[in-house]
Amino acid sequence: MRLYDYAASANCLKVRILLRQLNVPYERIDVDIFAGDTLTPAYADVNPLRTTPVLELDDGRRLPESNAILLYLAGGTPFLPEDRYDVSRVVGWLLFEQTDVMMTMGGLRFRLATGRLAADDPDALRRRHGAEEALRFLDDHLRSREFLVGEQYTIADIAVYGYAHVAHEAGLGMDGYPSVARWLARVAAQPGHVNDLAPYPPNARPGAGASIYD
Amino acid sequence: MRLYDYAASANCLKVRILLRQLNVPYERIDVDIFAGDTLTPAYADVNPLRTTPVLELDDGRRLPESNAILLYLAGGTPFLPEDRYDVSRVVGWLLFEQTDVMMTMGGLRFRLATGRLAADDPDALRRRHGAEEALRFLDDHLRSREFLVGEQYTIADIAVYGYAHVAHEAGLGMDGYPSVARWLARVAAQPGHVNDLAPYPPNARPGAGASIYD
Repeated sequence: MRLYDYAASANCLKVRILLRQLNVPYERIDVDIFAGDTLTPAYADVNPLRTTPVLELDDGRRLPESNAILLYLAGGTPFLPEDRYDVSRVVGWLLFEQTDVMMTMGGLRFRLATGRLAADDPDALRRRHGAEEALRFLDDHLRSREFLVGEQYTIADIAVYGYAHVAHEAGLGMDGYPSVARWLARVAAQPGHVNDLAPYPPNARPGAGASIYD
Repeated sequence: MRLYDYAASANCLKVRILLRQLNVPYERIDVDIFAGDTLTPAYADVNPLRTTPVLELDDGRRLPESNAILLYLAGGTPFLPEDRYDVSRVVGWLLFEQTDVMMTMGGLRFRLATGRLAADDPDALRRRHGAEEALRFLDDHLRSREFLVGEQYTIADIAVYGYAHVAHEAGLGMDGYPSVARWLARVAAQPGHVNDLAPYPPNARPGAGASIYD
């Protein structure tokens, strides 16, 4: 199994966490999106959308979308419930994560850290507002729960952890969200948890790399 | 089974299409987001995120997120492949739909139609650019395929159809995307297909309804 992986992407980190917790051996192919690695014809063949991560199976089939990869890897393991309703709830969180977590606090962190937005830009303020709504919702949900779905650590927790655990780098402290803060610590304390998220590199400036990031 | 449903939402339309194609009887609870129906304490109990649609099962359990509902309903039917890898590919499309289709052409259509954005606003231009990238990607993918995953009509097609079939209302014609245009017609020709998407109502002005829409 091969993972096309960008070290500074929390979408990639999510997959690295699960692979480690499943004890699945894999080859990590380093992709530097700001060096143009995703803009080559070869990478278009790996993933026409030019995103990371991509999981390549031993038979050559390739699966993009971080949360689809989590779902694939978790099938038949304790990281995904068996019941159809519970699976749908997990996938509901995977969808929420991409629209309400990654797009808001993830996107804001990226744009602030790499000089694409100032904190008072209307787009930054919109993302910040969305992030605060998502954190409030998460905090309410986690007030009486250990994990996002049932009483079981699942890929829903791994997915939301990805960008939520670096919300402070988008200027969003956890003071107002104590249940989220406790849950983040709980996720980080799971057996086999790794956090090797790299910082954005010096070349992550506007104009460098894939158009989707500029 | 009950569906909390907003007639003008393509997220809700997706679920209505599948329920009809599955011949599943259900009670439709009309929710008018611009009349404040999702802002009541009663609706917060139905769905703390205050979004539509929500599927309520006969035992009272409630499932939000349109694409999670599609996944739940499609389990064990021809609308979802059985193979774990293929299921993950379908879910990959469900994720893509929310981030790259709904957020771009869906969000733009909504904001233009209800007076929230002018066509030359930077946010409108950003969404338009994202929509064009998504349509190009879809067109390439569908050039040699009948449906999005395998050679089978699945909930991936229903999901992407939802907002893609009204892209023209966001000012995005299909002239440059002939494979998408043919695929949209193919989806609409499936047995049992319905399209009862309502127009946005006169009260869909800025300041009305749920904060997430303002």
